[in-house]
Amino acid sequence: MSGSEKLEIADLTALNAIAAGSNKKNPRIVAAGIGGKLMGTKSLVTVTAEQLTEDLKHNNSLSQEQKNKIIQDVKDAKVANEVKKTEDATKLHISEQPWTLNNWYKHVNWLNFVLVIAIPSYGLFQAFQYPPCLKTLVLAFVLYAFSGLSITAGYHRGWAHKAYEMSTPVKWFFALFGAGAIQGSVKWWAHGHRVHHRYTDTNKDPYDARKGFMYSHLTWMLTIPNPKHRARADISDLIADPVVKFQHTHYMALLLLMAFIVPTVTAGLFWGDYWGGFIYGGILKTFVIQQATFCVNSLAHWIGKQPFDDRRTPRDHALTALVTFGEGYHNFHHEFPSDYRNALKWYQYDPTKVTIYVLSKLGLAHNLRTFSQNAIDQGRFQQQQKMLDKMRTNLQWGQQVSELPVWDREEFNTRAKKEGLILISGIIHNVKTFIKEHPGGQAVVRASLGKDASEAFNGAVYAHSNAAHNLLANMRVAVLRDSNPNNNTFAVQQQYLDDHAIYKKLS
Amino acid sequence: MSGSEKLEIADLTALNAIAAGSNKKNPRIVAAGIGGKLMGTKSLVTVTAEQLTEDLKHNNSLSQEQKNKIIQDVKDAKVANEVKKTEDATKLHISEQPWTLNNWYKHVNWLNFVLVIAIPSYGLFQAFQYPPCLKTLVLAFVLYAFSGLSITAGYHRGWAHKAYEMSTPVKWFFALFGAGAIQGSVKWWAHGHRVHHRYTDTNKDPYDARKGFMYSHLTWMLTIPNPKHRARADISDLIADPVVKFQHTHYMALLLLMAFIVPTVTAGLFWGDYWGGFIYGGILKTFVIQQATFCVNSLAHWIGKQPFDDRRTPRDHALTALVTFGEGYHNFHHEFPSDYRNALKWYQYDPTKVTIYVLSKLGLAHNLRTFSQNAIDQGRFQQQQKMLDKMRTNLQWGQQVSELPVWDREEFNTRAKKEGLILISGIIHNVKTFIKEHPGGQAVVRASLGKDASEAFNGAVYAHSNAAHNLLANMRVAVLRDSNPNNNTFAVQQQYLDDHAIYKKLS
Ligand code: HEM
Ligand code: HEM
Ligand SMILES: [Fe+2]
Ligand SMILES: [Fe+2]
Ligand SMILES: [Fe+2]
Ligand SMILES: [Fe+2]
Repeated sequence: MSGSEKLEIADLTALNAIAAGSNKKNPRIVAAGIGGKLMGTKSLVTVTAEQLTEDLKHNNSLSQEQKNKIIQDVKDAKVANEVKKTEDATKLHISEQPWTLNNWYKHVNWLNFVLVIAIPSYGLFQAFQYPPCLKTLVLAFVLYAFSGLSITAGYHRGWAHKAYEMSTPVKWFFALFGAGAIQGSVKWWAHGHRVHHRYTDTNKDPYDARKGFMYSHLTWMLTIPNPKHRARADISDLIADPVVKFQHTHYMALLLLMAFIVPTVTAGLFWGDYWGGFIYGGILKTFVIQQATFCVNSLAHWIGKQPFDDRRTPRDHALTALVTFGEGYHNFHHEFPSDYRNALKWYQYDPTKVTIYVLSKLGLAHNLRTFSQNAIDQGRFQQQQKMLDKMRTNLQWGQQVSELPVWDREEFNTRAKKEGLILISGIIHNVKTFIKEHPGGQAVVRASLGKDASEAFNGAVYAHSNAAHNLLANMRVAVLRDSNPNNNTFAVQQQYLDDHAIYKKLS
Repeated sequence: MSGSEKLEIADLTALNAIAAGSNKKNPRIVAAGIGGKLMGTKSLVTVTAEQLTEDLKHNNSLSQEQKNKIIQDVKDAKVANEVKKTEDATKLHISEQPWTLNNWYKHVNWLNFVLVIAIPSYGLFQAFQYPPCLKTLVLAFVLYAFSGLSITAGYHRGWAHKAYEMSTPVKWFFALFGAGAIQGSVKWWAHGHRVHHRYTDTNKDPYDARKGFMYSHLTWMLTIPNPKHRARADISDLIADPVVKFQHTHYMALLLLMAFIVPTVTAGLFWGDYWGGFIYGGILKTFVIQQATFCVNSLAHWIGKQPFDDRRTPRDHALTALVTFGEGYHNFHHEFPSDYRNALKWYQYDPTKVTIYVLSKLGLAHNLRTFSQNAIDQGRFQQQQKMLDKMRTNLQWGQQVSELPVWDREEFNTRAKKEGLILISGIIHNVKTFIKEHPGGQAVVRASLGKDASEAFNGAVYAHSNAAHNLLANMRVAVLRDSNPNNNTFAVQQQYLDDHAIYKKLS
């Protein structure tokens, strides 16, 4: 065998290194800097390509039992007392230990707790004391829309999925207002999101929807994760982006500026409402965007239809779209992640898509990517076919002709009248109990007993519906010897109708 | 061959005689008596079983051309002048002659014209002069509901389809209030309706929906039909019913009594509104029921979905159901005619079904017939499968593996880098233009060029979606010699995932 005839198998470790972005000379640490640390997943991304490849060899998914256990652990603080039963519990990572009165505070990611629970709670409390003024509400709403769209059109479709190319001013806009949403830097966010897409519904999925609604919504970021569930995704394109780099480096300053200072100062300088600007334009606006975005991880993996693939958790639902600027067609999105659209129909709510489209018309966005209609329809077709196949196997279609006993004519003639047998398409059917039910009356069926009624059944008397053919198939009892049985009685009838031009297609 | 070994073929003429009811000693004339004559179709039912069987041998359906012609003829009075061109036009039956200034009045069924056009027009005209009083409106509405349900629950589902057995008081109720709907006697109506079901969408169909909306709604009964389109159905069960017999014999008297006298006298005696009773409770009530029922022949064959069979015209639509007491699920009904239900879901409007059900609970109706859920689901399945099959053939699935050229390894290795080729599942794919589009980034695909990337593609790096497999299939260019190509890359991946326990089904 000469050299050119060798078949090279792709090197999995090398490919995993590329896919994880760890093939670079100085593998950057995703969670570095305040922007990355914010959501605290350093241990999760410290992983080599060898480890990633190795991980494949172990059971990487949860059994139903394990799943129940995790949900139980998370919910049920009573488990705490059982820790004493486990001798070497302390040797386990904190995420593998049950919650106890002694260790519960170690389970919690306190920085995130402050950012997504404590501050918003304080804001809500203040809102009750301090009713808003209209101008401040309008400001809060505008900032909400700007920051929300910065996450969906910028962080998500633009950076994480490269669904289109942003012009530089658009990048700055999304990077600034995105920082105001307090969801981490683009770099951290897009990395986590790529991991989510690559490892959806496995332990490596940061917001693993199998672990329950609350886990995928909030709990995942409020608790310390298990470093065994390490994973990485390639973000070399993001590292090369100066806007992403700048935002990551100065994230904490940008966060304070965009989330709190801008609304406070705007409302204060223009209409003297500093406090309202802080509470409504700052804290509560951020709170609403956070919860809305979290819904993409929870609600979008929880309620709705699965028109493209039902093997994983993502789902399409108008309600989710409504609260997430159009990110609710999530079954589509997981199947076609780099499509700039989430909703395809004009009547479905997807303002993020509209924003991107308008930006492109203004020359501020380019190369909007879509999957071909063919690929989309193929997905829809396959899922529907799968449901239909399931439906078919749950229905009775009558015995297979090949499994039927073979009778000779004598046997048929002897038994026909007594047992109520009719021959159609070479197959003997027992119509005894059906005679009284026959929608075309008893007389015609009785007159056909013991006879070959193929022609009569197929159009010479009445061209029966599909329903009649289905009923017929479920009455099969035997095949007549040398009679050329045909179990596709539908086709036989169609042939008969065509031959006699009884029905013609209308268009 | 002994006698008992002979195979008897069902005698088609004999069976057609039974199905047409013409095997009886004294074949009754369906259109006899004022009740039958009313809608005037005597010539259409004077047909023998031999003729019916013979009819099959001729082209029994309309070509698109013939169809257009008929519609044209009906609409276009200008054709009239062309009659002189046809030498022997007068030898043709009036229905076969074009409309002319000399013969137009012969085309019209004047009795029906008076009953469904002239009288209602008079009623509408009067209504403008004479505003109704509330009590009379309530009376008209009650009579409308009684007469309407008598047609749908009585005439249609009860008598024409034997979908359940009516107790004698219920029969009298339906026969009386049904007469008030001015749609002919039960005997005439059910016969025509059985013919409609048996010959749907053929020339023998009295309200042949292929001839246009207006034809199936009204025109069919306002014009003299072609006696060539003769057809009969067995109604021996109806002839044996004393209530049907009585109603048929005394039809004209019952019509006048129920349609006009009862409302006039009721409104007159109780609240002095004789004229209002006559106009609103008599004429207009009848007009509304007539139009509503006609909608079953027109609208129900015109708008809506076809979940069970799309080869013929009947359709399911909520709007049709709304105006027809629930007869709008007509695609279902033509497939399962003797089911006492038309709508299956609780949220679909079918008051006729509810009426029958309540009657059965009161002991006034028995043996409510339904088709099995299995048969219904089979029909739904087949229609959906048919649509999916159509969808599949309209999509690109990539070249068949058997049609691909076979390359040896040398050829693959030589061309791979230059042309951008990757081997997956023994099939060579050209990914040149796709590299830039790859949602997982260019680097991993580039690193796989010229190599066998099966494992990487199927889960060792990333377990691709169905969408990715579909795209892949459309990039096929060749098969690698001795490499055991597998075009079901979906199955290959699933096997890989199962072997490595990467994804487990969640429930
Ligand atoms: C033995 C198996 C048979 C089955 C399962 C069967 C089933 C049915 C069903 C379900 C219908 C309702 C209408 C439709 O399907 O479109 C029907 C109607 C009818 N059948 Fe049959 N049938 C059988 C045999 C026959 C035979 C042997 C004849 C004639 C010789 C016959 C004559 C008719 C006629 C004339 C109608 C029309 C009723 C109407 O729509 O008003 N059937 N049959
Ligand atoms: C050559 C044919 C290929 C096609 C048609 C293809 C197609 C796709 C598609 C459609 C996606 C989007 C997610 C999905 O639908 O599953 C995707 C994602 C991905 N692909 Fe490929 N791919 C190909 C080759 C490869 C190879 C050879 C590798 C690795 C060696 C690879 C690695 C990935 C990774 C890591 C992702 C994850 C991206 C993410 O979800 O963030 N692909 N690919
Ligand atoms: Fe998701
Ligand atoms: Fe995404
Ligand atoms: Fe119909
Ligand atoms: Fe019917």
